[in-house]
Amino acid sequence: MIIVMKHQATPGDIKLVTDKVTDAGLQVHISEGSQVTIIGVVGDKSKLNSDFISSLPCVEKLVPVTETYKLANKMFHTSPSVIDLGNCQIGGKDLIVMAGPCAIESKEQLFASADSVKAGGATVLRGGAYKPRTSPYSFQGLEEQGLLYMLEAKKRTGLSIVCEVTSIHAVNAAVNYVDILQVGARNMQNFELLKAVGKTNLPVLLKRGLCATIDEWLNAAEYIMSEGNQNVILCERGIRTYETATRNTLDISAIPVIKSKSHLPIIVDPSHASGKKPYIPALSKAAIAAGADGLMIEVHPNPKEALSDGPQSLNPEEFKNLMNELKAIAEACGRTLSCV
Amino acid sequence: MIIVMKHQATPGDIKLVTDKVTDAGLQVHISEGSQVTIIGVVGDKSKLNSDFISSLPCVEKLVPVTETYKLANKMFHTSPSVIDLGNCQIGGKDLIVMAGPCAIESKEQLFASADSVKAGGATVLRGGAYKPRTSPYSFQGLEEQGLLYMLEAKKRTGLSIVCEVTSIHAVNAAVNYVDILQVGARNMQNFELLKAVGKTNLPVLLKRGLCATIDEWLNAAEYIMSEGNQNVILCERGIRTYETATRNTLDISAIPVIKSKSHLPIIVDPSHASGKKPYIPALSKAAIAAGADGLMIEVHPNPKEALSDGPQSLNPEEFKNLMNELKAIAEACGRTLSCV
Amino acid sequence: MIIVMKHQATPGDIKLVTDKVTDAGLQVHISEGSQVTIIGVVGDKSKLNSDFISSLPCVEKLVPVTETYKLANKMFHTSPSVIDLGNCQIGGKDLIVMAGPCAIESKEQLFASADSVKAGGATVLRGGAYKPRTSPYSFQGLEEQGLLYMLEAKKRTGLSIVCEVTSIHAVNAAVNYVDILQVGARNMQNFELLKAVGKTNLPVLLKRGLCATIDEWLNAAEYIMSEGNQNVILCERGIRTYETATRNTLDISAIPVIKSKSHLPIIVDPSHASGKKPYIPALSKAAIAAGADGLMIEVHPNPKEALSDGPQSLNPEEFKNLMNELKAIAEACGRTLSCV
Amino acid sequence: MIIVMKHQATPGDIKLVTDKVTDAGLQVHISEGSQVTIIGVVGDKSKLNSDFISSLPCVEKLVPVTETYKLANKMFHTSPSVIDLGNCQIGGKDLIVMAGPCAIESKEQLFASADSVKAGGATVLRGGAYKPRTSPYSFQGLEEQGLLYMLEAKKRTGLSIVCEVTSIHAVNAAVNYVDILQVGARNMQNFELLKAVGKTNLPVLLKRGLCATIDEWLNAAEYIMSEGNQNVILCERGIRTYETATRNTLDISAIPVIKSKSHLPIIVDPSHASGKKPYIPALSKAAIAAGADGLMIEVHPNPKEALSDGPQSLNPEEFKNLMNELKAIAEACGRTLSCV
Repeated sequence: MIIVMKHQATPGDIKLVTDKVTDAGLQVHISEGSQVTIIGVVGDKSKLNSDFISSLPCVEKLVPVTETYKLANKMFHTSPSVIDLGNCQIGGKDLIVMAGPCAIESKEQLFASADSVKAGGATVLRGGAYKPRTSPYSFQGLEEQGLLYMLEAKKRTGLSIVCEVTSIHAVNAAVNYVDILQVGARNMQNFELLKAVGKTNLPVLLKRGLCATIDEWLNAAEYIMSEGNQNVILCERGIRTYETATRNTLDISAIPVIKSKSHLPIIVDPSHASGKKPYIPALSKAAIAAGADGLMIEVHPNPKEALSDGPQSLNPEEFKNLMNELKAIAEACGRTLSCV
Repeated sequence: MIIVMKHQATPGDIKLVTDKVTDAGLQVHISEGSQVTIIGVVGDKSKLNSDFISSLPCVEKLVPVTETYKLANKMFHTSPSVIDLGNCQIGGKDLIVMAGPCAIESKEQLFASADSVKAGGATVLRGGAYKPRTSPYSFQGLEEQGLLYMLEAKKRTGLSIVCEVTSIHAVNAAVNYVDILQVGARNMQNFELLKAVGKTNLPVLLKRGLCATIDEWLNAAEYIMSEGNQNVILCERGIRTYETATRNTLDISAIPVIKSKSHLPIIVDPSHASGKKPYIPALSKAAIAAGADGLMIEVHPNPKEALSDGPQSLNPEEFKNLMNELKAIAEACGRTLSCV
Repeated sequence: MIIVMKHQATPGDIKLVTDKVTDAGLQVHISEGSQVTIIGVVGDKSKLNSDFISSLPCVEKLVPVTETYKLANKMFHTSPSVIDLGNCQIGGKDLIVMAGPCAIESKEQLFASADSVKAGGATVLRGGAYKPRTSPYSFQGLEEQGLLYMLEAKKRTGLSIVCEVTSIHAVNAAVNYVDILQVGARNMQNFELLKAVGKTNLPVLLKRGLCATIDEWLNAAEYIMSEGNQNVILCERGIRTYETATRNTLDISAIPVIKSKSHLPIIVDPSHASGKKPYIPALSKAAIAAGADGLMIEVHPNPKEALSDGPQSLNPEEFKNLMNELKAIAEACGRTLSCV
Repeated sequence: MIIVMKHQATPGDIKLVTDKVTDAGLQVHISEGSQVTIIGVVGDKSKLNSDFISSLPCVEKLVPVTETYKLANKMFHTSPSVIDLGNCQIGGKDLIVMAGPCAIESKEQLFASADSVKAGGATVLRGGAYKPRTSPYSFQGLEEQGLLYMLEAKKRTGLSIVCEVTSIHAVNAAVNYVDILQVGARNMQNFELLKAVGKTNLPVLLKRGLCATIDEWLNAAEYIMSEGNQNVILCERGIRTYETATRNTLDISAIPVIKSKSHLPIIVDPSHASGKKPYIPALSKAAIAAGADGLMIEVHPNPKEALSDGPQSLNPEEFKNLMNELKAIAEACGRTLSCV
């Protein structure tokens, strides 16, 4: 940590700050510039009340030089994490594709979706049983009945299954059915939920919040990991910006940034990022080329009748075609697309 | 709702869309332009699967013309809501000031804070017992012990008390102690939590999410109100933008926008909005002048020793001085500052 | 400046960096932390190729500790600048109000506007002769004919006049007519234009760019000032964010931030910030309460017929009423509203 | 265009609006909903004063249904534009790579850059002679001397050359030297400059503004095209968001969006988008996979000594390696990488 003093700080001010640091058992290195003095702090920062320091009138600002997340940090775990799902792995040479409807609407719709995404080459079936919706008057999901349909679809197809959980109640139900628990963008800083999924032994798919920084995202992963669950998969799904041509702005740079800062695998959701079907193929290809470990794509057997997010769902034919195009790009990048 | 057809839509496409609308029992009005055709839809939109419509290849976009929130909408409740707290009201001519430490650290710290904010003219004591923190390794709050100290501080001073709740577990504890339940920015779209506070009979202070639109914020209020609890107080606390000179960007326009769209009272939190003590007075004055119904300000008996958010807390002396300055502005705006 | 080394930097790396710094005649102070080493740099940074340093593989990042602007910096010019316009001053106890139509449409419209803003208490008449418009097919302004009408309006009313300039050609024309040259938001980093207005001896009203940081804004002021013209007036007019309820988001915090970093006066344009007439009074009041030195407000004698920006113009009656309300707030803040 | 009336609009209000529209020679279609009335407007909107309409108190908002740009619009020019540069084309099957130093520093540096980018497979040499810099005290470029070095580098290598122009003065100089005129991000809405390059007969590379919407960007292209110059190449270079892990946020979605709305070619600048060398390969690959027509990459013979933007420049070896990786992805996408 670096302490930048104010322009007008006196020698007494500098002594006050350095005493506070050394009293806490840390060391200081002082650089007196022509305009400002900066103080480098060396030692275990958790012993220091940095809020005290930054609130001093003589202090301009504190500059952190190390990240607050440890378990998610590549610095302390240099090789990439590979997460095993039984029928496939996430984070290895094989790319993973999770596909299925935004919301589970009925057994028939889910089975038709599952069959078609399996035929297209997906290895994980997605489907929402608990739906976070902006308006309380929108369809909120089939809840546990939906989880049951997912389990049946798994038995039918051999696909692994992933469902979003929106409450501790939903976590308690979902652990009996699913292979991956998903924490949605709106709950990325619902710390109670993060702790709850961190206490399970299921892999967790952690979506990036709509306006979360990458640093906050990795700290959210840290909440899960600090409870003992190291199997976190990150999912970039677009951030909120001023641009309205797409529903969100896919932050494609997040892929190389995460790869440089963390060992956790990262996948991309082009459906929520764009909100518009015609843009999904281009974003899917870009994600693979940028180094993502997989994709999460909405596929609906009949998107025109979908109860939610219809405009951003591919139909089975479109999904299959996209998978073929992705295969070529994956190979050009030294990856393979499917583990079926 | 308006349906804008694609440029190349055929008469058959238009018939497909209009049939779908009329089959659901609604009416259409068609405007054929030189370049595009638009279809006005009249009737109860909840009967219509609008996702179906917007996913049709011949449809360019849907344009909503009415808001999805009803109970929070000024259109159906034209006079401002006034919420009674016993010792004062929120939303009337009197402005309300909630003040106190960010986090409750000890009984002594809280009592000192309570005494000083009362002396300064506040009518509600704030204090965090459950703290949502970016890193799992930061101080997380005293939890129920903190709520108990708050209740004692209330007895000591006569101030009403407000505490943030971050889980259903915390709601169940807090209802036994506090006068107002606070839902924080990170939980604004934690819909399970919104429903839970909506089932209590305590007023709810709903902070705006870091990147929530005003429309999403009012829909979050609607979640609470649709469970039966009409006593929602909105709190603008800054939104996330590219500017880094302040911690967040106070969206001062949110005040007149909310006043034009909703009957709910709105207060402003200049401490979290700015993140920097020197800017709090200017933002507080601006909020009052813009028509806010009150403020929520961090005051710490000794901000230099605060365990969290020290750089954005006023000390008792600064708080008192600010209150005096605010009184003059309140009066210039036809409001009164304190109900003590 | 502080150099933060990478985690894995070797003693050889550190020597390489420190040699580069000392070879340039500057001094270093090294702090070796448990995880990273930081190097404080002391001396004249303009002698150092900081891009070289930051591009080294062993360097994590550079942290600047002093601003790049000098003439605009409060550190070197601690008392507020007051700019004299002949009939009034900007930056003193008196608040200034610039008002008038967005675009000059005709002599009649301009004269009617001038008469009504004078009657309302404005001291400066605004009016656009060169209009930057998003589409090339929108009305682009009357150009020099408009400047001539402005000069006639000045003679008629005694108001000072301000016009936007969008090119060096426009600067050359405007210096013959106006009292203040305005550089618009879209040209805030049109450095050739900044240099050109910096070579005139007229005060310059510099609007903040739609997505400019406060630091970039003050550097833009520095471009003008470094050419010799110290009379720069800053104008906050809203920044671009994700929120669409208003045309832009007024960054009210910019007022105290500018007051803490610079000696230049700052005014606020609530018309462009909100884009909606009903929100202008609340934002105007907030600006005054936050410490702005004045306002720039669009007033049109008949806003319903305005060729541009009609939805954000007040009519003369509304303007007059607003001025009365502002007067009370100005006084509550220890300012006075008008110098007429 | 659609006019959405306010909730409380009376039949008289509706008549007022519809009369105004029909008086201008356009037609209306009225849809009376249970809550609001909407009015579809059919005909030539340029005859209508839409600002008048939107400023009426009875009008809630106007919803445009057609774009304001015509010449840049795919609707009226359905096949992609291919721009011929002599030694290569932009917008065809071949991808184009423009590479070179951010700023021209000396003849030696430029020649070394030119040789190495040619060896790597680039077909266009980039190099800045007029540099827009945030601070007036940063290096501003060699100006016409730099243009002369570029021309010599062209003769030496056979590469086409592109230079940024920042003023009409620079345009007048550059037309004597370069093959492509570049308008930078900060000048995207410098309309005088757009008109000036529109009057030349050289292709124009138009960078997206830091916070420009895609709609504004295409309107900026329209400014150039409406002056007679149809050869516009768009360049996505990242937009400004709250995320600070990268210098800007590459809006990868802009590629499919532009391809769906316009016939103009689009390339991507991963160097400015990321601001960090390690992320350039991933973003370059993503751009190609998303369908971009080429790239603009900063290459410096010795990036450690670069006078500007060193941290985001590749060295010749890195550039060559990247080109090889890109070739494989280009082919997987049905494109070819180089026309040498």
